[in-house]
Amino acid sequence: MTSYPQSTVADVDAAVKAAHEAFQSFSSSGAQTRAALLRGLAQVLEDNRERLVLLADSETHLGPARLNGELDRTAFQLRGFATRVEQGAAFAFEDDPAVAGSPPVGHPHLVRVRIPVGPVAMFSASNFPFAFSVLGGDTASALAAGCSVIVKAHGGHQGLSHTVAGLARDVIATQGLPVGLLGLVDGPGSQIGVALVEHPLIQAAAFTGSVRGGLALESAARGRKQPIPFYGELGSVNPVVALPAALAVKGAELAQALAGSITMGTGQFCTSPGIVLVPAGESGDAFVAQLSEALRGAKTHEMLTPQMRKGFDQGCAQWAGEPKLKALLAEPAAADDVSPRPYLAQIDAQGFLSSHKLHEEVFGPAAIVVRVSGIEQVIDVLDAVGGSLTVTVWGADAPTDDNVSLVRAASRIAGRVLFAGFPTGVAVTAGQHHGGPFPASTVPFTTSVGYAALDRFLRPVALQDAPQWLLDRKGVPA
Amino acid sequence: MTSYPQSTVADVDAAVKAAHEAFQSFSSSGAQTRAALLRGLAQVLEDNRERLVLLADSETHLGPARLNGELDRTAFQLRGFATRVEQGAAFAFEDDPAVAGSPPVGHPHLVRVRIPVGPVAMFSASNFPFAFSVLGGDTASALAAGCSVIVKAHGGHQGLSHTVAGLARDVIATQGLPVGLLGLVDGPGSQIGVALVEHPLIQAAAFTGSVRGGLALESAARGRKQPIPFYGELGSVNPVVALPAALAVKGAELAQALAGSITMGTGQFCTSPGIVLVPAGESGDAFVAQLSEALRGAKTHEMLTPQMRKGFDQGCAQWAGEPKLKALLAEPAAADDVSPRPYLAQIDAQGFLSSHKLHEEVFGPAAIVVRVSGIEQVIDVLDAVGGSLTVTVWGADAPTDDNVSLVRAASRIAGRVLFAGFPTGVAVTAGQHHGGPFPASTVPFTTSVGYAALDRFLRPVALQDAPQWLLDRKGVPA
Repeated sequence: MTSYPQSTVADVDAAVKAAHEAFQSFSSSGAQTRAALLRGLAQVLEDNRERLVLLADSETHLGPARLNGELDRTAFQLRGFATRVEQGAAFAFEDDPAVAGSPPVGHPHLVRVRIPVGPVAMFSASNFPFAFSVLGGDTASALAAGCSVIVKAHGGHQGLSHTVAGLARDVIATQGLPVGLLGLVDGPGSQIGVALVEHPLIQAAAFTGSVRGGLALESAARGRKQPIPFYGELGSVNPVVALPAALAVKGAELAQALAGSITMGTGQFCTSPGIVLVPAGESGDAFVAQLSEALRGAKTHEMLTPQMRKGFDQGCAQWAGEPKLKALLAEPAAADDVSPRPYLAQIDAQGFLSSHKLHEEVFGPAAIVVRVSGIEQVIDVLDAVGGSLTVTVWGADAPTDDNVSLVRAASRIAGRVLFAGFPTGVAVTAGQHHGGPFPASTVPFTTSVGYAALDRFLRPVALQDAPQWLLDRKGVPA
Repeated sequence: MTSYPQSTVADVDAAVKAAHEAFQSFSSSGAQTRAALLRGLAQVLEDNRERLVLLADSETHLGPARLNGELDRTAFQLRGFATRVEQGAAFAFEDDPAVAGSPPVGHPHLVRVRIPVGPVAMFSASNFPFAFSVLGGDTASALAAGCSVIVKAHGGHQGLSHTVAGLARDVIATQGLPVGLLGLVDGPGSQIGVALVEHPLIQAAAFTGSVRGGLALESAARGRKQPIPFYGELGSVNPVVALPAALAVKGAELAQALAGSITMGTGQFCTSPGIVLVPAGESGDAFVAQLSEALRGAKTHEMLTPQMRKGFDQGCAQWAGEPKLKALLAEPAAADDVSPRPYLAQIDAQGFLSSHKLHEEVFGPAAIVVRVSGIEQVIDVLDAVGGSLTVTVWGADAPTDDNVSLVRAASRIAGRVLFAGFPTGVAVTAGQHHGGPFPASTVPFTTSVGYAALDRFLRPVALQDAPQWLLDRKGVPA
């Protein structure tokens, strides 16, 4: 097994200083420079596809089909940000001409611009070795905004992290940009990650991962002399609400496909459905039976790391300890099989509401069916779950009072509400919002997927009575 | 002296529950309803101008001229938000049509809407009894966004807080809206303020005040099971940079007017200039002499509260304890005069940089002149000051390398950079940004003045494959 150099705190300092130096010029770069860089980074991923996918698969067990798709998505995302930057997304400003007269009616000339915040810290995520890692959405959006980036490698795919960072730095150098623009550090999050976030020159941090790890980093970000924004995506149970209207039309089809969503990538997605709300009664019973059956036959693969597997087994065991919960599918994995088996259990709404431990995410292919009677119970269950990246509602096709109440409840706790399909698979597009009330996001007003992600790295500044030379430069003193 | 009922924690709970109930209908109200409410609130302030100003003056000593102006501004602000709401500011959404094909190119139909966050907590500020209090900018922007509001009264103007809240509730009732839409609680911030922020139904909080008070409330906001955004504007020293080019043209005029800005409202503005960077040498000497002289003759009035006066005296004394600092103006107030005298002292850049206690705000009519040689020293002083609401730069009329570097440094630490005039007086307009790196703001991406303030109370939600009935309602399930 290859071993990779571990960063010291001095290495972190050197990388951040290089990123700070690179920021001095890159922060005032034009759209063309940034777009060319983002496209060059997309291209280098594609040019090295075969060896990158091979390396990623050896480290993550996610399989070549998924990893090729993820590489496609990552390149698409980099190019998408390039296009957005060319369209002016990072340079938009509000020009508010002077109004003559005394206040409050009269006011001076104000131009509100947005400036890149500075060097930013990014954390590779275990479960997306391409799309949420070295050249993932956080890095792409930060570069689009004009920031330099330091990425902390993930222990689950160190080789890939170092290799991609090396390729990226070659692209940066070839384009005549300072290589400090993209730094990589590697080591335990509790030391190297914290040192990175605490570095006084770092101006924001973005993270996708566990609640525990995220809260530790957020605490470091907030404990600084000058606190900085910490954009953390920490956990989500992603309730799916199957209304009778949907079950009547295509219950069997939905059950089959839902099993696929629960077990996709062995359930290691932040948007993996963890709670399924199903009406009490016969059509609900049939749906649950179909879901169990489909899950029984579902394929899984080895989890990303042994710690995650341990966490999954412990989480299921903790759920199973709830006396009112009835197991539907709880086969132990065969002794010679490294893949966990899907877990499914059932409880009624009252039982669910009264057991806090059932409201917490178990990362992996596990879900709880909650049997509900009436819309009030559905809403109570959603409110008990609290912040979530997504809520999926099937069968709200008519504007009934119940459906109106349900959509309101879903919007109240989630960053994305789906009316068809499955929460896994997050489109990289302008209308996307990947966030939601805590713990889904530590800053629910922002998104980590889609083009609005660059807003996280641009801070507004109002220029009052700015001289013409500065206005000619659109308020950016290049 | 009238005494006002102090709220208990049970009162807080009742007020928040009423606000939550009111939110259920108001959150889906249309532009017309919100605009009519905001205009009605503006009108009731104007209709009761005489007695409100009298009451405010008796409690704050700010004087009728200033208080009438502040009431004008508050009414203007309420009407301004009404207009913005009619223009659709709170209802804008991004419609992102489906694209056929497989991901990453293909994607479902996504509509990103913004929903009001819920009942929000506001804190009356000592120094703006109208504009940052019961019907101030925080309340106006929250109502415009569709949120209900609970305001905590300020001990420095309890009578005004209760009277304005009563008038506002009459307007709300007259318009057929639920009176829970605007609640008032009153009591110590450390108990009643914290209880308000910790209430599970409260979804955001906005505050203008001291660093200590703000950090305590922020800690409560973040320590909740579900943390909420805390928009705090906590402190700012507002450096003013007088470049040689400006002193050469109109040094005397600027000195005179700067003295007015430092002593306006007895220095009790968050944008009051606290540090003046003046070039070493003769023209700088002349400017400093003129500034001292103008300050010596400036009028002040009694401070808002005895605690603030104590803080001012202690702050000046602490500054004066710095051996390298040379007092320019440090007259004690006459024994029979309740008004503090302006304080001015001078130090060179090296001395300033090495003394941390000089970097902290003293709230009141006090400023430090820092004598600087060359642009590097100017930038070092700005960086040492750190986050500030404003930086004012006089004389950066030409795009020299020095001026470019200076504007970059100013933008790096401030939310507003002025190139003429004075930081006191914050226009309520679309291009305004009243925020800045900590401690100026706890969320520097947001503004508490100007129409962008309503963005603080609208959280994005992406609706995926939403049914037509919901799209017909623009994604808001009214």
